[in-house]
Amino acid sequence: MTLPAAEHGRIPRFADDYSRAASARRREFLRETAGAQLEHVASYSFDPALLAGNIENFVGVAQVPIGIAGPLLVCGEHASGEFYVPLATTEGTLVASYNRGMKLLHRAGGVRTTVMDDVMQRAPAFGFDSAREARAFGQWVTASFDAIRQEAESTTRTGRLHDIEQFSASRFLFLRFNFTTGDAAGQNLAGKATWQACNWIRARYPGIRQFSLESNLATDKKSSQINILRTRGKRVTAEATIPPDLVREIMHTTPEQLFQARQVSNLGGLMSGVNNNGNHSANGITALFAATGQDIANVAESSAALVHTELLADGGYYYSITIPALIVATYGGGTGLPTQRECLELLGCYGAGQVRKLAEIVAATVLCGEISLGSAVVAGEWVAAHDRLGRNRP
Amino acid sequence: MTLPAAEHGRIPRFADDYSRAASARRREFLRETAGAQLEHVASYSFDPALLAGNIENFVGVAQVPIGIAGPLLVCGEHASGEFYVPLATTEGTLVASYNRGMKLLHRAGGVRTTVMDDVMQRAPAFGFDSAREARAFGQWVTASFDAIRQEAESTTRTGRLHDIEQFSASRFLFLRFNFTTGDAAGQNLAGKATWQACNWIRARYPGIRQFSLESNLATDKKSSQINILRTRGKRVTAEATIPPDLVREIMHTTPEQLFQARQVSNLGGLMSGVNNNGNHSANGITALFAATGQDIANVAESSAALVHTELLADGGYYYSITIPALIVATYGGGTGLPTQRECLELLGCYGAGQVRKLAEIVAATVLCGEISLGSAVVAGEWVAAHDRLGRNRP
Amino acid sequence: MTLPAAEHGRIPRFADDYSRAASARRREFLRETAGAQLEHVASYSFDPALLAGNIENFVGVAQVPIGIAGPLLVCGEHASGEFYVPLATTEGTLVASYNRGMKLLHRAGGVRTTVMDDVMQRAPAFGFDSAREARAFGQWVTASFDAIRQEAESTTRTGRLHDIEQFSASRFLFLRFNFTTGDAAGQNLAGKATWQACNWIRARYPGIRQFSLESNLATDKKSSQINILRTRGKRVTAEATIPPDLVREIMHTTPEQLFQARQVSNLGGLMSGVNNNGNHSANGITALFAATGQDIANVAESSAALVHTELLADGGYYYSITIPALIVATYGGGTGLPTQRECLELLGCYGAGQVRKLAEIVAATVLCGEISLGSAVVAGEWVAAHDRLGRNRP
Amino acid sequence: MTLPAAEHGRIPRFADDYSRAASARRREFLRETAGAQLEHVASYSFDPALLAGNIENFVGVAQVPIGIAGPLLVCGEHASGEFYVPLATTEGTLVASYNRGMKLLHRAGGVRTTVMDDVMQRAPAFGFDSAREARAFGQWVTASFDAIRQEAESTTRTGRLHDIEQFSASRFLFLRFNFTTGDAAGQNLAGKATWQACNWIRARYPGIRQFSLESNLATDKKSSQINILRTRGKRVTAEATIPPDLVREIMHTTPEQLFQARQVSNLGGLMSGVNNNGNHSANGITALFAATGQDIANVAESSAALVHTELLADGGYYYSITIPALIVATYGGGTGLPTQRECLELLGCYGAGQVRKLAEIVAATVLCGEISLGSAVVAGEWVAAHDRLGRNRP
Repeated sequence: MTLPAAEHGRIPRFADDYSRAASARRREFLRETAGAQLEHVASYSFDPALLAGNIENFVGVAQVPIGIAGPLLVCGEHASGEFYVPLATTEGTLVASYNRGMKLLHRAGGVRTTVMDDVMQRAPAFGFDSAREARAFGQWVTASFDAIRQEAESTTRTGRLHDIEQFSASRFLFLRFNFTTGDAAGQNLAGKATWQACNWIRARYPGIRQFSLESNLATDKKSSQINILRTRGKRVTAEATIPPDLVREIMHTTPEQLFQARQVSNLGGLMSGVNNNGNHSANGITALFAATGQDIANVAESSAALVHTELLADGGYYYSITIPALIVATYGGGTGLPTQRECLELLGCYGAGQVRKLAEIVAATVLCGEISLGSAVVAGEWVAAHDRLGRNRP
Repeated sequence: MTLPAAEHGRIPRFADDYSRAASARRREFLRETAGAQLEHVASYSFDPALLAGNIENFVGVAQVPIGIAGPLLVCGEHASGEFYVPLATTEGTLVASYNRGMKLLHRAGGVRTTVMDDVMQRAPAFGFDSAREARAFGQWVTASFDAIRQEAESTTRTGRLHDIEQFSASRFLFLRFNFTTGDAAGQNLAGKATWQACNWIRARYPGIRQFSLESNLATDKKSSQINILRTRGKRVTAEATIPPDLVREIMHTTPEQLFQARQVSNLGGLMSGVNNNGNHSANGITALFAATGQDIANVAESSAALVHTELLADGGYYYSITIPALIVATYGGGTGLPTQRECLELLGCYGAGQVRKLAEIVAATVLCGEISLGSAVVAGEWVAAHDRLGRNRP
Repeated sequence: MTLPAAEHGRIPRFADDYSRAASARRREFLRETAGAQLEHVASYSFDPALLAGNIENFVGVAQVPIGIAGPLLVCGEHASGEFYVPLATTEGTLVASYNRGMKLLHRAGGVRTTVMDDVMQRAPAFGFDSAREARAFGQWVTASFDAIRQEAESTTRTGRLHDIEQFSASRFLFLRFNFTTGDAAGQNLAGKATWQACNWIRARYPGIRQFSLESNLATDKKSSQINILRTRGKRVTAEATIPPDLVREIMHTTPEQLFQARQVSNLGGLMSGVNNNGNHSANGITALFAATGQDIANVAESSAALVHTELLADGGYYYSITIPALIVATYGGGTGLPTQRECLELLGCYGAGQVRKLAEIVAATVLCGEISLGSAVVAGEWVAAHDRLGRNRP
Repeated sequence: MTLPAAEHGRIPRFADDYSRAASARRREFLRETAGAQLEHVASYSFDPALLAGNIENFVGVAQVPIGIAGPLLVCGEHASGEFYVPLATTEGTLVASYNRGMKLLHRAGGVRTTVMDDVMQRAPAFGFDSAREARAFGQWVTASFDAIRQEAESTTRTGRLHDIEQFSASRFLFLRFNFTTGDAAGQNLAGKATWQACNWIRARYPGIRQFSLESNLATDKKSSQINILRTRGKRVTAEATIPPDLVREIMHTTPEQLFQARQVSNLGGLMSGVNNNGNHSANGITALFAATGQDIANVAESSAALVHTELLADGGYYYSITIPALIVATYGGGTGLPTQRECLELLGCYGAGQVRKLAEIVAATVLCGEISLGSAVVAGEWVAAHDRLGRNRP
């Protein structure tokens, strides 16, 4: 394999890099270098100048189809009433399935949603000569909390340092800085504030042998037990109570059958070591994230879930899901881009003070999808639905 | 809260539902019902007739910006040579960071990639009167494997049933059907074939008290230890060996420092119960999935990773990542949609026989991002990079 | 701190080291060196010559009190009928609690027990230049299985190599050798046979850069998801069906209340990342292990459990526990020592062909303890019981 | 199977139940009922009156052989100097292996030990009509902490309620009460104090639909990620730095080889989902627990461990182990029984104010065993050692 020197194949960059011309030149480069035609990719409807801060080496857009499900009836503290939910996906059946769940829970009286906690982290590690020094450092951090907070918050208008958890192993102390971050998802805010605080600490505290701004105690873009326990982003619970007749009419099954299947899923999940004893929350979360300009990679964390259901004395079915690490924003990241902003506006979630509303809508949507897929599996309709609506042509 | 009856707010559907007119009417409906303007969403460049099987209630598209990173030098069995990688994201710094890693590993001689395993699952559960009956059923399944396989494969041209793993708990036997699925991701194929096989089983084997087509032993759209152990989709390893001078020149750090930080990340990850001891593989995987029409929700599973590095005797740095559940397709799902297909073609991965090539490119891309972010954290450049390139304006 | 040279304080050893005289001389040494009186420790009732192969530097015995619970009614395939179970413990309430559970399940018709699987492991790791070589090695291992098995089995009369599972990560291949081991627990047998097989492999297969006989894929003396999934030792399920009246009469609660509490335990366990969604199987297992000469350290693994219960249509309560890694022996280890052998004989489990009987008795005992403690917690009697029977005098 | 009525086989109990006569009558009963001879079991050296609060239905003792290892050189804050460590086990090689590690680390300057944290839990769950009520309850608990603490501490002389952690899922709030418990292990103390506090809460707070004193957020007798993160009992770190020459001379290997093997164990452990990336801490812990009257069943939790090692610039080897859930007592439970007390006295750990000293000795012992077994595996001596010293006669 003879390879061209890396320089020959260098992707062109320009002073005015966020422009139609620059992106066209890069597509031309790809055509010359890789023989690629990017005609549909080139079909975007906005001024690339908007993209500074969102992407580098811009060449165009992925057009991801959006379908609408609803009305979703939410009885939350921040979201209240009916919503039409934009879901960006390429997987047939997904929108129809969520839509079916929304119909069921609308007739059941809607989905109650509650934001239980709200916190974003960065977790640096500090290494010392021995565990004893690590312990002493922890005591100093506790005693110095006010000063550390002041330093951390000096870098941000909206971020607030709530507390610093400590975890020790070997001669290291891991600090988990817990922030509230307003309408932003807050990873960058938390990173910058923690960095500032750590620099302040390192200038003052002697004997730090090793330092790392992140060492897997905040697990950004990864799923972890600590985030299931302690929350990352929003911890949201969505709940509904469903009369048995509705389950039969719309879902073609019964609460008893759903509950029995749920028990077996719990047992299977305990064996498999799964991060979610529910059905497929990632589907709804991903589709909403893609439509509304969230950082989709957070699905890695946000896909964790805790499902709990109960057969009620009156024959009804109580169904709940808790999403312990739902990372959403209505400000920053991709939320201000054209299609993404339109989708946020469709939900009444664009701009200041809307992030918990969005979190509630996501959780309510997820619950609808849980009961819909769960019912389809139990009623034996799951494969047929995919044959009808999906690209099930093996 | 007075609510309109669900019917009033019903989303319009039409006989010719996959048309510009139908999507326009739905947008109109959303304008009337929710006051939403969807102008950019309406700006798509293809005939909606293409979308049958990919979405329901189509209203338009999310335009997700694509940036290009490369050249990525891959030394795989299916992917070989230089690639320009389309990354769809709204997170500033991401493309630049992967690009930096690609530059480093290009100069280091490229990324070796190997597909270690390839298997897709569906895992039904069967309940009996007691554990003893469950055990007897397991013996019957083993003895009947050829017939079960024949039945399963009768539903598919490309799927092949490789084996059926058995896991028991209480009076249930969980079967994990392991398929190869050609160029498709294969979840629907595996679901349909397993459904067929299970119906055959249930018609023949007496005493099955409970049946569920899925009970958390395949953990679709969820992260699990079983999939880390046993693979779901492709298990791919990407490796590189980096001379120390290059680490210093391009990454502004040293192999020793990177290795020390890695050790602390391993320790932190063991404490936090993380599904990935690496840095942020979900970022690259999500961006590539969004660009190339993969089912992005699979990031929930595909974000698991096993990182192993070594300091070599000559001062060099061996860096590897194994992605145990990388779910990719070059056929089916969203891969044939216009922008998605163009991006696959850019990588030479569109059409038959390309799926392992795509898997190798994804894994190689991920490795570049791992070393780039890891170095930025160690070199203290991570926050500054996000200040410069991201929307770090808290 | 001035320290004596290590030699001064050397523990005395003798040619005839397993003798009363030798142990007396060591106790004398401890009296001189550490001022310790070991009078009760010195009170043992057997000839220390028996202890060769069981301990080094013998000085005497721990006298751990044994209480009897029963009759335990077992309806197993290997254990059938009533048993009086010796439990060695120092924790007040434990024997009484298991006894209460045995009374309940006796009146409910006994405990059904089933050994679902039986396998012991050693899991060596082999390192190569790259992942691709690791994959090739795996193919060679598969092709060479018969020869490897022959080599492994050459070191043992009773051990049989059932299969070799393969797990890959980075440039390593982990092999999990699965043996059946007769009446022995089999760790040493499996270790020796695997060592022999690996030496044979290493002499024949070129390119192995690194080798380790064990690398955490068999997790001896540790709890792991792989052993919960794939069994280590015996996988045993114990089941019972309890009429509601008995629950009320003996346990002072109802199946409904027990079931509700169980649901919350499942939810809590999913959050906490526990290896056992039951109550306290380790208590019964440890007490039986200590009494019958098992390797008590295996409680680390054997304490994992999967509990599943059901509320039946007739109001009864189905209760089951699956112990996926129950490591027991009726031959070898401590099973032949005097008190340990007497306790095995009390259960009719001493000598050849009894190991599955013992496994069933352990599992049945555990189930009795689960329902007893679970009921005490739900009925609000747990603290009072410990006040009455335990050393609850804080 | 015809069964005698349970009453016929009833275990005899007496007014003066903790007496030689009562235990003799029970042994007689076992002889008549089960044909069992319990002669060695009957050979105990103390007055059974001592056993009230430790066991029910006493029949005799398990004589578990004790071997001595040492001198162990500890450089702790509570334990300082040389110790001879009593290890009760029936597994040949164990004492010799720990002894070898103690020799190595003595010559290396001893083991530094640090108690990093000290806390014991009980974790009740409270259920409500909805998640929102659960959240409100959490706020009330926070506001009422002083009163709750006062109530909890009213039941104990030595226990102190440090804080109450909150974890939410569905419509439940799980409270984790964290106590310090003096020289007792403290599970019963924590249980009783929490029970008292919960009764106080339930009398005052309206709307509690469901209550359970324990729901798997404290995971007594079970291993969990939460306890690895947050400590249960003592969190102790043991560390040593070993010159390379000593590794070669005593262990017949090198720091480099040990470190390489450790890396592969970390990788394997990440795949297998193990609760301990070390070698076999359960062995030493169990043997010390059995000798010193600890609740051996706690090995289920105490066997979790976090191992971290470093190759130092001078060629030396830094080796550390953190035991995050080491549950030990020098008061209460079995610590006051005759042989158990003698063994505690041998370590200078009997009586008031000694519990952290004991924790340090356990951790130091464990570290010696880690390096000894790890070296034997790497040096290829592990199987031969078991052939020589164990009952390796398959």
